[in-house]
Amino acid sequence: MLVEDVDFRHAWTSPELLGQKALAVSLSDIAAMGGTPQWAMVSIGVTQGRWDSDFLPRFYEGWHKMAAFFGVELVGGDVSRSPDRTVIDSIVGGVVSKGKAIMRSGAEPGDQIFVTGQLGGAAGGLMLLETGISYASADVMKRRLITRLIRPEPRVEIGHKLVSGGLATAMIDISDGLGSDLLHVCEASGVGAELYAEAIPVDPDLAALSLSKATPMGMALGGGEDFELLFTVAKEKVSHLQGIGAARIGEITEKIGTIEVIDENGSRFSPPKGYRHF
Amino acid sequence: MLVEDVDFRHAWTSPELLGQKALAVSLSDIAAMGGTPQWAMVSIGVTQGRWDSDFLPRFYEGWHKMAAFFGVELVGGDVSRSPDRTVIDSIVGGVVSKGKAIMRSGAEPGDQIFVTGQLGGAAGGLMLLETGISYASADVMKRRLITRLIRPEPRVEIGHKLVSGGLATAMIDISDGLGSDLLHVCEASGVGAELYAEAIPVDPDLAALSLSKATPMGMALGGGEDFELLFTVAKEKVSHLQGIGAARIGEITEKIGTIEVIDENGSRFSPPKGYRHF
Repeated sequence: MLVEDVDFRHAWTSPELLGQKALAVSLSDIAAMGGTPQWAMVSIGVTQGRWDSDFLPRFYEGWHKMAAFFGVELVGGDVSRSPDRTVIDSIVGGVVSKGKAIMRSGAEPGDQIFVTGQLGGAAGGLMLLETGISYASADVMKRRLITRLIRPEPRVEIGHKLVSGGLATAMIDISDGLGSDLLHVCEASGVGAELYAEAIPVDPDLAALSLSKATPMGMALGGGEDFELLFTVAKEKVSHLQGIGAARIGEITEKIGTIEVIDENGSRFSPPKGYRHF
Repeated sequence: MLVEDVDFRHAWTSPELLGQKALAVSLSDIAAMGGTPQWAMVSIGVTQGRWDSDFLPRFYEGWHKMAAFFGVELVGGDVSRSPDRTVIDSIVGGVVSKGKAIMRSGAEPGDQIFVTGQLGGAAGGLMLLETGISYASADVMKRRLITRLIRPEPRVEIGHKLVSGGLATAMIDISDGLGSDLLHVCEASGVGAELYAEAIPVDPDLAALSLSKATPMGMALGGGEDFELLFTVAKEKVSHLQGIGAARIGEITEKIGTIEVIDENGSRFSPPKGYRHF
């Protein structure tokens, strides 16, 4: 469920991109189980002003564009009026071969931890928008950060490959932040984790923000909305990951519910708690 | 999708009844196709104040009570914060034997029109609440009217019987009002309809409102949210309806998109347009 002023602001995106994102965040949940998305429902409540504008056709145009790309059929939903704010509820159904779905609960000590793509970019984009920098006024690096936030790309194909190859023992998509979402996996699996700081793929575009040295790593660990996949692989299967773009960032341990990040000096620290304003 | 101050008010119901109604309105859609409900999702956005109160556990208690009654399993959904107003999106999935679902589009000229239960009660309940009469301060008849609004009963079993017996040619649930919902059937089927005023089951509790003589009929024809089933039956199958509590209220005609109500003097009038504030 996406609520205006909690999960998004109209001033920061377009109706088309909002439609795309509403679907993308649910597709990401399907991707995180290795599923193939099939059908979707979207319910939306809008103010009278937006009802009378071209908002809804543009929203659905963006939604359908992404649905067509992923072969998803709209099978239901609702359009309502809402007094003050836009609210969107998005649901996607998908399929996976019986017994093959990748759960959060399958990680075991010794499993290697992987993540797709780069992390912290969406948090960087949010920081830019919150400080009044618009997409239009941003340079190319900053635009890429804002794009990470307003136009997430669900990793459906990678999730599918991991299921086909029987490669992942546990998986989740990064919506709250690497630290929080890894904790969800660890709690569901009854394990802990160690992460290697230098291996975490911090989004290089964060360099555009002129932040203090430690901040990009904090955004990669604590920033939400990147919608990359975080998964664990048994050691003996790591060599089968060739061709799947993912970085090895750590290892599952026996310390139940404990996540430690090890920096280049060997010091250990706890990741920041994830957040989810956006 | 139910939006506070558009589709309901907290002051007029309880968290438990709101949870029940959120599910009931979707169950009613399944009933209207003759389906058997199986799974459901509910997403809810609430203000910080309700988040911090006992609202959510009470809402879900009501929801689950109704779900258990109908054998529905909660398979997904979301809980979010919303700045000002509660918003609820409810989805139910159901099954029906292949080719047996009852659509809006199957009515043919000569088919007889039936409706379950009594009509106009929910509109009467809304009128009471809007004039400041609370459930607590109401007498027994007025309480029943308010109950019709805040605690609708989806007609799942009747829908199911109609499918099993292959009895209905078209069906819809009355959410917008008898006139509007019958028009939906007529438009989808490419037909028209005649209704017999004296056969329409006007809720007898509307007598408690001391309204002018014509008003209860107007509420039965135009009031929404009764969630009764409106269906059509081929003439030769009418005798098979025994044991299904439904009143014969009219006949399908060839006058595409035209609905006429015939009163006891033989005069014809158009039903009021349905409304849907609540």
